[in-house]
Amino acid sequence: MPVLLPPGQGTPLDRLLAEANTVGIDCKLPSTRKPDTSQPLIRGLGSLTAAGPEEISFLSNPRLQSQLHDCQAAAVIVTPAVWESIRDETPGFLPVLCSEPYLLYALVAQWFDRHRLGSLPQGIHPTAVIAESAELEEGVNIGPHCVVEAGARIGRGTRLGPGCVIGAGSTLGQDCLLHARVTLYHGVTIGDRAILHTGCVLGADGFGFAPDPRTPGAWAKIAQLGGVVVGDDVEIGANTTVDRGALDNTVLGNGVKLDNQIMIGHNSQVGDYTAMAACVGVAGSTIIGKRCTLAGAAMTAGHLTLGDDVHVSGATAVTSSIHKPGRYTGVFPYSDHSEWQRNAAVLTQLGALRRRLRTLERQQSQGPAGDQE
Amino acid sequence: MPVLLPPGQGTPLDRLLAEANTVGIDCKLPSTRKPDTSQPLIRGLGSLTAAGPEEISFLSNPRLQSQLHDCQAAAVIVTPAVWESIRDETPGFLPVLCSEPYLLYALVAQWFDRHRLGSLPQGIHPTAVIAESAELEEGVNIGPHCVVEAGARIGRGTRLGPGCVIGAGSTLGQDCLLHARVTLYHGVTIGDRAILHTGCVLGADGFGFAPDPRTPGAWAKIAQLGGVVVGDDVEIGANTTVDRGALDNTVLGNGVKLDNQIMIGHNSQVGDYTAMAACVGVAGSTIIGKRCTLAGAAMTAGHLTLGDDVHVSGATAVTSSIHKPGRYTGVFPYSDHSEWQRNAAVLTQLGALRRRLRTLERQQSQGPAGDQE
Amino acid sequence: MPVLLPPGQGTPLDRLLAEANTVGIDCKLPSTRKPDTSQPLIRGLGSLTAAGPEEISFLSNPRLQSQLHDCQAAAVIVTPAVWESIRDETPGFLPVLCSEPYLLYALVAQWFDRHRLGSLPQGIHPTAVIAESAELEEGVNIGPHCVVEAGARIGRGTRLGPGCVIGAGSTLGQDCLLHARVTLYHGVTIGDRAILHTGCVLGADGFGFAPDPRTPGAWAKIAQLGGVVVGDDVEIGANTTVDRGALDNTVLGNGVKLDNQIMIGHNSQVGDYTAMAACVGVAGSTIIGKRCTLAGAAMTAGHLTLGDDVHVSGATAVTSSIHKPGRYTGVFPYSDHSEWQRNAAVLTQLGALRRRLRTLERQQSQGPAGDQE
Repeated sequence: MPVLLPPGQGTPLDRLLAEANTVGIDCKLPSTRKPDTSQPLIRGLGSLTAAGPEEISFLSNPRLQSQLHDCQAAAVIVTPAVWESIRDETPGFLPVLCSEPYLLYALVAQWFDRHRLGSLPQGIHPTAVIAESAELEEGVNIGPHCVVEAGARIGRGTRLGPGCVIGAGSTLGQDCLLHARVTLYHGVTIGDRAILHTGCVLGADGFGFAPDPRTPGAWAKIAQLGGVVVGDDVEIGANTTVDRGALDNTVLGNGVKLDNQIMIGHNSQVGDYTAMAACVGVAGSTIIGKRCTLAGAAMTAGHLTLGDDVHVSGATAVTSSIHKPGRYTGVFPYSDHSEWQRNAAVLTQLGALRRRLRTLERQQSQGPAGDQE
Repeated sequence: MPVLLPPGQGTPLDRLLAEANTVGIDCKLPSTRKPDTSQPLIRGLGSLTAAGPEEISFLSNPRLQSQLHDCQAAAVIVTPAVWESIRDETPGFLPVLCSEPYLLYALVAQWFDRHRLGSLPQGIHPTAVIAESAELEEGVNIGPHCVVEAGARIGRGTRLGPGCVIGAGSTLGQDCLLHARVTLYHGVTIGDRAILHTGCVLGADGFGFAPDPRTPGAWAKIAQLGGVVVGDDVEIGANTTVDRGALDNTVLGNGVKLDNQIMIGHNSQVGDYTAMAACVGVAGSTIIGKRCTLAGAAMTAGHLTLGDDVHVSGATAVTSSIHKPGRYTGVFPYSDHSEWQRNAAVLTQLGALRRRLRTLERQQSQGPAGDQE
Repeated sequence: MPVLLPPGQGTPLDRLLAEANTVGIDCKLPSTRKPDTSQPLIRGLGSLTAAGPEEISFLSNPRLQSQLHDCQAAAVIVTPAVWESIRDETPGFLPVLCSEPYLLYALVAQWFDRHRLGSLPQGIHPTAVIAESAELEEGVNIGPHCVVEAGARIGRGTRLGPGCVIGAGSTLGQDCLLHARVTLYHGVTIGDRAILHTGCVLGADGFGFAPDPRTPGAWAKIAQLGGVVVGDDVEIGANTTVDRGALDNTVLGNGVKLDNQIMIGHNSQVGDYTAMAACVGVAGSTIIGKRCTLAGAAMTAGHLTLGDDVHVSGATAVTSSIHKPGRYTGVFPYSDHSEWQRNAAVLTQLGALRRRLRTLERQQSQGPAGDQE
């Protein structure tokens, strides 16, 4: 992907658009615009209300359209339809017409961030401890106090922030970005272009114990002999944990996106492009399909199957398999505390309530008639 | 704040009280006490049932008042009212009269802990890796294996435990205490007197992706260009994560207290003095007011507003904005499993139940009369 | 425990069984088998469907019995009853008869893993920073970038992975295994044979604050002067946190097993052999008995008591003490989103629903009769 000029120097708007075009994003200035209009230099990216006169902004949520009126940005990414509806107001910004404004915003943000990434330290820091048998491809950058254990392999262009630990025999693909203090246990395999955030842990032991009758109540550890296999283009958030399999592997497909503080239990499999928001818990041996979303703090019990395109609402506990695409929810509605107390009290008597209703129904159907005889 | 003698030597009780007075806490021995009574040396702090004859204790919860009878402590912090009610029993301890016993206990505990803090190693450990462009004020202490990146600034008297990482351009105020392995990404700003616990991560990328139609189902990363801004007197618990903003900053106000394993999503704002117990999740772009409390495992959906003085009960999912101060709850009442099964079965038929009730009501209102004609 | 041959060389099956016998597991080949049959070499362990001809497998879940038909393993651990029911089919594997197949599987898995553990680096890594006053018994292994602070003690045979921090005066028993980046604050005591996973934090400050009327809304920190005491044979998962006590200790009994991302609040006590699955939260000052289980994402409020043998279902919030053994549940049943919306709407009107039912009941009991007069 082409490299923009540093934000300090600014990048001409048309160069930005040309670069978007080269990666397959259709975007342009309105055709009615005179070709000799001077190109603004873009030095930053901001929201509609915060962007300044040397920045670019975007409108992806139609409900924010009214914010266009006072927008100070040099240019704003909008859909052609939005532009049609406001062009007569001759706003002060240049419109960038794009059918996918949110996607173009994502790419522009990446470009600005890439400049920062490019300025990070290069090479292997002398405090890093790297086993002789580890294999590092060209262009690998390793930060201070990292540890790369025996037999680990790290692909070209991959970067390890300070304090990362790559366990024995684990593998990282190319162009991965590990922020500070990422830990891979032994036998973990990660594809290309992974982004792993601080404190995430891949390959810790799954939670497996057998009751041990030799000591009543005690548990015997089931050593976890499987690994973790992660596809390409995966991002894993801060302090998220993905446990190793008991015998087989725990698997994350391509393009999986996990937010912070998520727990993926051992032997689970997560399909391509599935995304999970923070604090989700996936118990062990759960198979989750492709393109699913689990909103924040959703939980799944173990040994379940969720098919493709299943969307689970936040704070919902999924306790049985779901085979049909769709959205699923199970949240206790919150309310004022005293109102909740009243409702919760009835809730624990629902069975009795139903019985009383049945009694009434039975009386209703036979009652008065009988009395009249 | 004045420094007490080491616990081993003991501190005379009246010196302890004088120090409390200097920081604005009104406390004293009863006026009826003869001034020449010898001052006990206080070497420790304990609960009413565990404190020994050289320790001080306190009573803040009226329900524990009966524990005063057998209390072995040299002195006990009590309210004047409590003392009035028990003085005739001539207990063995000296009463310390204070209208805020819990607050005075907090301060005494801080004083004892301060002695331990004072004995920690001083200076910059030689294994720390500190960028040349980083700025360290006087009296900064940096533990082994820390990393301070380019342009970071650390204020006077701030201490970093082993293995902390301060990202490029991040700023820590004065007299902060970072325990082991705290991570600040780049562009994070922390005020004075912060206490940050092991494993907490500030400034990891917010969870932002745009659907990328170029590959069906795939997500394009929205680089997170905002930062994190934290006020003064903030404490953040172990393994808590506060994500950086997408364009603007994620903000924690002054005096905010976060327990362990909390997740604060990108762009969120938490008002002054708001406290959250462990395992709380705040989704992105949520505005939380001042002096709120969120009890353990409470969750808020994204893009909400919670006004000032809102109190959310534990394990409650807040799915819409709350503008009125008060306490809010939404917890499914637990019960014996088989009872739960019966109630839960009815729960999924509530709509039908209500319809049946309506039918009965309609029949009741017209039924018998019509039949009798 | 005896050491098997490396997996590469393979271990004769009868040697494996003899070793199980020496640790008190009763297991054997069928008596009808001819003694001169050659002993297969066992090089690995696999599930019934994945194990190859040089591996051993096991059947512990009766519902998987049909998988025995096509099993390619050299040997399969089964109960005598299962073997009776299938022996006439003369399967291709050797049956290992054991009344506890899951336990024997656990031990075999441990043996295979032990070979890997035996190959880990020995000794004290030169990058580790170890205080002069720390005491290390014989055979302690300390990985790169570890920090062992003043007065800490580490028992014989204990291993610290890279980047562990052992706080001042903390104690680790014998034969403990700390994976990378485990942190013990000061004053934490751990028994023998602990397994601590990456990112777990023992001894961070409990969450204790007193309202500080000197600044309206502000909180005064209650320094946490207690410690953490952990028994023998405890395993603690990745990124789990166990806070130190306010005055007394937080206590985990012998044989306690905690999965990942669990939070144990200050002053809590967890009884022997109690196990908790991932994402559980135990608020402060909670007493949990022996042999309890808390399934994933269960939560307990603070200051509760759970007796022995209490089993809490996943995603259940326990808001009051439980004294009777048994299983307890409180989960809102999930459903299709629109169905949930309908039910949730009624849920907030349960009180009104009950009142309407009462009205109908009253009318029913007196109504028609009165009308007929």
